[in-house]
Amino acid sequence: MPPILSSLHAVHPLISRLYAKPLFLSFTNLSHSSLSLREFSLPRQSFPVKVRTLSSIASAAQSPSENGSGGGRSGALSAPPPVLEEAVQKIDVNPPKGTRDFPPEEMRLRNWLFHNFREVSRLYGFEEVDFPVLESEALFIRKAGEEIRDQLYCFEDRGNRRVALRPELTPSLARLVIQKGKSVPLPLKWFAVGQCWRYERMTRGRRREHYQWNMDIIGVPEVTAEAELISSIVTFFKRIGITASDVGFKVSSRKVLQEVLKCYSISENLFGKVCIIIDKIEKIPIDEIKKELKSVGMSEEAVEELLQVLSIKSLTKLEEILGGAGEAVADLKQLFSLAENFGYSEWIQFDASVVRGLAYYTGIVFEGFDREGKLRAICGGGRYDRLLSTFGGDDLPACGFGFGDAVIVELLKEKGLLPELSLQVENIVCALDPDLQGAASTVATILREKGQTVDLVLENKPLKWVFKRAGRINAQRLILVGNTEWQKGMVGVKILSSGEQYEVKLDELE
Amino acid sequence: MPPILSSLHAVHPLISRLYAKPLFLSFTNLSHSSLSLREFSLPRQSFPVKVRTLSSIASAAQSPSENGSGGGRSGALSAPPPVLEEAVQKIDVNPPKGTRDFPPEEMRLRNWLFHNFREVSRLYGFEEVDFPVLESEALFIRKAGEEIRDQLYCFEDRGNRRVALRPELTPSLARLVIQKGKSVPLPLKWFAVGQCWRYERMTRGRRREHYQWNMDIIGVPEVTAEAELISSIVTFFKRIGITASDVGFKVSSRKVLQEVLKCYSISENLFGKVCIIIDKIEKIPIDEIKKELKSVGMSEEAVEELLQVLSIKSLTKLEEILGGAGEAVADLKQLFSLAENFGYSEWIQFDASVVRGLAYYTGIVFEGFDREGKLRAICGGGRYDRLLSTFGGDDLPACGFGFGDAVIVELLKEKGLLPELSLQVENIVCALDPDLQGAASTVATILREKGQTVDLVLENKPLKWVFKRAGRINAQRLILVGNTEWQKGMVGVKILSSGEQYEVKLDELE
Repeated sequence: MPPILSSLHAVHPLISRLYAKPLFLSFTNLSHSSLSLREFSLPRQSFPVKVRTLSSIASAAQSPSENGSGGGRSGALSAPPPVLEEAVQKIDVNPPKGTRDFPPEEMRLRNWLFHNFREVSRLYGFEEVDFPVLESEALFIRKAGEEIRDQLYCFEDRGNRRVALRPELTPSLARLVIQKGKSVPLPLKWFAVGQCWRYERMTRGRRREHYQWNMDIIGVPEVTAEAELISSIVTFFKRIGITASDVGFKVSSRKVLQEVLKCYSISENLFGKVCIIIDKIEKIPIDEIKKELKSVGMSEEAVEELLQVLSIKSLTKLEEILGGAGEAVADLKQLFSLAENFGYSEWIQFDASVVRGLAYYTGIVFEGFDREGKLRAICGGGRYDRLLSTFGGDDLPACGFGFGDAVIVELLKEKGLLPELSLQVENIVCALDPDLQGAASTVATILREKGQTVDLVLENKPLKWVFKRAGRINAQRLILVGNTEWQKGMVGVKILSSGEQYEVKLDELE
Repeated sequence: MPPILSSLHAVHPLISRLYAKPLFLSFTNLSHSSLSLREFSLPRQSFPVKVRTLSSIASAAQSPSENGSGGGRSGALSAPPPVLEEAVQKIDVNPPKGTRDFPPEEMRLRNWLFHNFREVSRLYGFEEVDFPVLESEALFIRKAGEEIRDQLYCFEDRGNRRVALRPELTPSLARLVIQKGKSVPLPLKWFAVGQCWRYERMTRGRRREHYQWNMDIIGVPEVTAEAELISSIVTFFKRIGITASDVGFKVSSRKVLQEVLKCYSISENLFGKVCIIIDKIEKIPIDEIKKELKSVGMSEEAVEELLQVLSIKSLTKLEEILGGAGEAVADLKQLFSLAENFGYSEWIQFDASVVRGLAYYTGIVFEGFDREGKLRAICGGGRYDRLLSTFGGDDLPACGFGFGDAVIVELLKEKGLLPELSLQVENIVCALDPDLQGAASTVATILREKGQTVDLVLENKPLKWVFKRAGRINAQRLILVGNTEWQKGMVGVKILSSGEQYEVKLDELE
């Protein structure tokens, strides 16, 4: 071992091991040639053979045209590789309609978004959960005529089970809560970031596959739970730069509808269906809405009264109509009062027309919207105290929300708030000679063991290429492994922001 | 505003806002009653009505039995909630066979594992990518008789497209690389952590749905790329406490087989099929293997020679048989040489029987195994230089690996290395009076804005319950919001590890 390197022995086992094997001393004896690693690393000779060697068979079997170099096996180095398929069909290089690839730049954005979902959930003391993407179809089939049912990606699996790609996360959550039963102490505060599918016409911020952030509170009957959930979404918006002048929440309660329907002695069984019809108010003509409401058994008078109530945008006005004694008004008043305490009053407004498109909501419902009115709902949620019993479980008070990953990105684009995210690698390590590739690997290992990120250049490339790559990956330092320095147990370092350049001993490389 | 509180004005807008509205002054005037928020927050009166109110309709419509309290709307407070479904069927509370729920404790483990996957990938300068879970079926249909094809979750979507839940990530990666074409500078170093499906018999550490960590290098023809990949897996093992005495890598090259087949003039088209047959060597009887090999056109002699070569466990022996001039031996020698430099020689061993079960590998192949031989392969990978052209793209040198999330967990269990992961929440905030729930919300908001995690108690619960919950969520501090303290602009703090207890001004709460 060269004296200068023996002091490194204590530093890193790799360094000492390098010099313990004669094989790796070779670089000190070689000039700066362009020999490949393969050429210098081991002598190219056949070892004595006991059996007939395959190479002799090869020579005999190969035709002259297959072996242009005239005998032996050297031709094998350029032999055509095996063809895996008989017929090559050009595939569609795009992902299936409505789905997405996430190349690095898209993935950085997704990770940034999910990181914020998770950080906010963590601030609120929620625990992360997940469920299978492929669920039993029965979990999602409700009889209320929801849009979601017609959009189900469902099929029969090889075991003849009807399964579906989940269109939402809440039914799976309900299933898990029933399964856990009394083994989990309430309340549960759970969140999930999961992929969901719906087969539908695509519009801006709406694909067939998307991710959804859910937060749910199981076991709290009071509106404090809904208030906490809206607070967490507000915290999320603030974190990513969205203000109360960009978005707001429309808030109402399904109990408003329930009280209206009760007045007209309309069967409670129709409740879910009526909600689903009303949710379409902004999407289909009002006459169509009226027709649908009548078709489920509402009188002309009830329909008119209902539509009048739904147009109310003020809690005071609602109280005038419904009276102050019902749960709907009391819940909403408590929610608006808590909003003051949480500090997000300016974000929320009462709007009786909000009912949400899922059948299972029973109380407060809310949705986040962009104030410019350009986009679909950003998020939505509410109370669903009766969902568990629809699956045969014991009901528990529950509420939650879903927040998709698509509309929010559209909004961030609109507002010029998309973050600039780029790859950041601390070091790019490069061997100046092909025969120093092994040494460069050692340097990379040492840095990585210190927690430093390293892009190791894996081929023999000109320095110009290396600098270009360093720029593209935003490397902070270029570590050059050259023969002269390596013989002294040193490497060259170039700080790429300043251009500063120096040599450093391997054991002093931090 | 009480003088003691006016000093808080500068501290936080929420605190000042609390006192700006007469509504929220009420708590200073109220005695420590148990009035609910709803009762004190707004006067309970109906505002003058312009139209016939719904409550009057309700009174008329309700039968006495429905409205036991004798008129008015107070009965609505206990009215039965709507039933969403006509018939309640008890659903299966378990996830579909072969899939998993991730309740919090399982999710913490998954997050820990994925975090390590990501951190290692980042150390190696790889960028994260992802692809659709639902891909075109054509992407996974190869003609080599792979196990993976028969296990495909495939179906026809509502647009009559043949789609499949991805059984692996590599074909999607290849598709994206072809799509990006020359717009991305090589080499690409990409990683992904994605969910995959295969319909198969379940065994230990093998489910129908699993997650897979992939790292791939596109554009590097040299074995330096494979060496880098194995290095990253070794780094991962070390991070989670797995040593070279727990696991190892069996390494070979498909070129070994290729050279043998070439000697016997066996068509290159059969290469993939032969590999798939050989991959089953440890799973089905040897006579069956021989029969299958003969059925694709190999002579008795070729089969015997092939099986002899496959039994080789030493690189020196391999060189004796194949001669030293071929690519197989040269590649493997270079890889073992680089392993020395990277520092993981003790982790790898040559084993000619390793071919891997995917048709597309063309060069180095490797798999991670537990040395006790109890489990299936932990991970596996190799070079696939010809995959892109099977999709109609221009070939690029490429290699990568897949590392599942199931077998590794089994191994960690075996070795007693599963980490203890528990929920950690910094604060639990609790109102001592129901009418201080709003105040507690304010305290929670202030702490969260400072980046502190807070579990806010959302119901009026006895202190005993609160302490129990605090213990379960590993809260560090209990913040108590009581009337006497709150009037002084203070809250009570109890450090739960030491029992230390003190009062602190809201603006001094860190």
